[in-house]
Amino acid sequence: MQPIEYAEASPEVRAVFDDIKATRGVPDVNNFWKYLAHDPRTLRRTWESIKEVMAPGALDPVVKELLYLAVSVTNGCEYCISSHRASAKGKGMTDAMWAEMLAVVGMANETNRLANGWQVPVDEAYRD
Amino acid sequence: MQPIEYAEASPEVRAVFDDIKATRGVPDVNNFWKYLAHDPRTLRRTWESIKEVMAPGALDPVVKELLYLAVSVTNGCEYCISSHRASAKGKGMTDAMWAEMLAVVGMANETNRLANGWQVPVDEAYRD
Amino acid sequence: MQPIEYAEASPEVRAVFDDIKATRGVPDVNNFWKYLAHDPRTLRRTWESIKEVMAPGALDPVVKELLYLAVSVTNGCEYCISSHRASAKGKGMTDAMWAEMLAVVGMANETNRLANGWQVPVDEAYRD
Amino acid sequence: MQPIEYAEASPEVRAVFDDIKATRGVPDVNNFWKYLAHDPRTLRRTWESIKEVMAPGALDPVVKELLYLAVSVTNGCEYCISSHRASAKGKGMTDAMWAEMLAVVGMANETNRLANGWQVPVDEAYRD
Amino acid sequence: MQPIEYAEASPEVRAVFDDIKATRGVPDVNNFWKYLAHDPRTLRRTWESIKEVMAPGALDPVVKELLYLAVSVTNGCEYCISSHRASAKGKGMTDAMWAEMLAVVGMANETNRLANGWQVPVDEAYRD
Amino acid sequence: MQPIEYAEASPEVRAVFDDIKATRGVPDVNNFWKYLAHDPRTLRRTWESIKEVMAPGALDPVVKELLYLAVSVTNGCEYCISSHRASAKGKGMTDAMWAEMLAVVGMANETNRLANGWQVPVDEAYRD
Repeated sequence: MQPIEYAEASPEVRAVFDDIKATRGVPDVNNFWKYLAHDPRTLRRTWESIKEVMAPGALDPVVKELLYLAVSVTNGCEYCISSHRASAKGKGMTDAMWAEMLAVVGMANETNRLANGWQVPVDEAYRD
Repeated sequence: MQPIEYAEASPEVRAVFDDIKATRGVPDVNNFWKYLAHDPRTLRRTWESIKEVMAPGALDPVVKELLYLAVSVTNGCEYCISSHRASAKGKGMTDAMWAEMLAVVGMANETNRLANGWQVPVDEAYRD
Repeated sequence: MQPIEYAEASPEVRAVFDDIKATRGVPDVNNFWKYLAHDPRTLRRTWESIKEVMAPGALDPVVKELLYLAVSVTNGCEYCISSHRASAKGKGMTDAMWAEMLAVVGMANETNRLANGWQVPVDEAYRD
Repeated sequence: MQPIEYAEASPEVRAVFDDIKATRGVPDVNNFWKYLAHDPRTLRRTWESIKEVMAPGALDPVVKELLYLAVSVTNGCEYCISSHRASAKGKGMTDAMWAEMLAVVGMANETNRLANGWQVPVDEAYRD
Repeated sequence: MQPIEYAEASPEVRAVFDDIKATRGVPDVNNFWKYLAHDPRTLRRTWESIKEVMAPGALDPVVKELLYLAVSVTNGCEYCISSHRASAKGKGMTDAMWAEMLAVVGMANETNRLANGWQVPVDEAYRD
Repeated sequence: MQPIEYAEASPEVRAVFDDIKATRGVPDVNNFWKYLAHDPRTLRRTWESIKEVMAPGALDPVVKELLYLAVSVTNGCEYCISSHRASAKGKGMTDAMWAEMLAVVGMANETNRLANGWQVPVDEAYRD
């Protein structure tokens, strides 16, 4: 599979690429979008969803990037870790924040399995 | 398997239970610790680690709880979701923060698979 | 979905149930097989495979059960944890072995994510 | 990200590296620790935990390595498979043990999903 | 957490519920949507996405449901298995199709781990 | 680890390789089998199982390949994605089918987590 570059992209794909570039203020889109361009509908839907979900809200954009990284590290998605580490740094993630995020992700993955293994029943107090 | 209650616990287990109760200001520990008490060494090590990892640092405690939840939701650990949802609310997580965290976790799990499936190579710009 | 009991099973299913009961010396098969009986070919193939894979070999049967549990705890399969915990105990797993297995599984799930997150390259010395 | 070599490490990191080298009788630490050194607290905590968890106990050290590998193979952590395959061989894992471990891990991952899909309820006999 | 029923829903949520009911020809929406209604934006976005992705295209709707089930069984999402099993049956999934899907999912989960464990390099012939 | 080529394989391994080549009409087996050949029993069992499971039945062979891919993409198994993408194309998978499969897999991984996070209870109507 090869990436689809802007020069060879259909108008539908170019429109999405243009919006990504304008929204992020970047000269070119990253590989994820160039591969997703093989499926223009999914390209558009994914971009629109990402734009909505990652926008500032009750959570700060850098916190959203950290959450994204926590999932990607748990799933072992190398591309996603690399690309969102870059985004997170662009939004203010420091080295200390990165390291603490990874420490929490490691612990959570450990204690998730301890809870599974010991088959711990949910405390009544946690039901809401 | 049954939980080990304070009254029947060994001195070693009681010491950990006492520290959890004092640190968190709660009258009793939750089920996770009562089951882990079957393995006193893991009980102690896990508690010491959690205390260190979840303490305030470069990241706010509520952000750490959100990261914990992101992992637990990704892994489908019901106990962990329930217990850390309670902790997160205790540390200031609002309903809006909860909902936004879940939206990010959903998107990340989706785009992790799109990146896997399209076998997207890491952009040179992301290497550091 | 309902389990298929021996009395209502087809001859093909009964033959597998009979072999499970004889091999394990049990009066009845457990629920896993009663549900798999809805697909007699998968029932037979799975039983033949399990019988071959879990038999004594270079690894002791109780070690094989512990490995089975390590996977099931990692994946969060409640049925598999419950049924193989029983099998493991029947093959000599003590409470101490159970607890140590869970501690290793927890640690491995943690350090797997630390390795993912820090994107650690494989040492040359490990290539074989 | 770059590894932190002994020559450039802080005293806090060197102390952990020294203990790893002494405990394992190796001339240098492997890449995992050199990357984790970017977060000295997690480096120390992880090493102390690993040392405690992987030590001989009710389970033989080679069995603990096999359990570690079972988790890493299930999660698809390439680094962890490579490094713990080396450790396991150093502790006595033969080619036959390696192959049998993988066969069990494969089967467990298969039957975990058959149990999920058929939504098999836990047998009363397994409740303890 | 409690489901949000139509009678108590906001106009924004009711509009989505109405569209789900009209599109599917059902008298009420299922629990998934009643819980997602706590986050109206994610409710709307998820419904619009599902409607687009699960619509007939190059793949038959029942095949899309089978793919959905394959993922849900792999991840162990009980709710998703139950709800999409019902959808799949409504779109023509027979018992034989269900059983064959599960057999493939089981095998794929097994051979994924055999490929991980043996660290099989991708054949040159597969590069495209 | 190195692949085992036909020329150096034992008669037991050659017999399996011969059957794979004859069944698939290919001049050589792919790497998966050459590595699995280190464990002849698992090689044989896995091949016999794959042959049975992937054969035409209630589901078309290309649908089975798509299901295989859905699992492999979810688990992030690069080898499995590459090899079964080739098999699927050989059995009639078009680019449009590939893209739609990935879109479904992405959505399912997202909504699995939304269901986990909102802890949605199974609707009574789905119990069968």
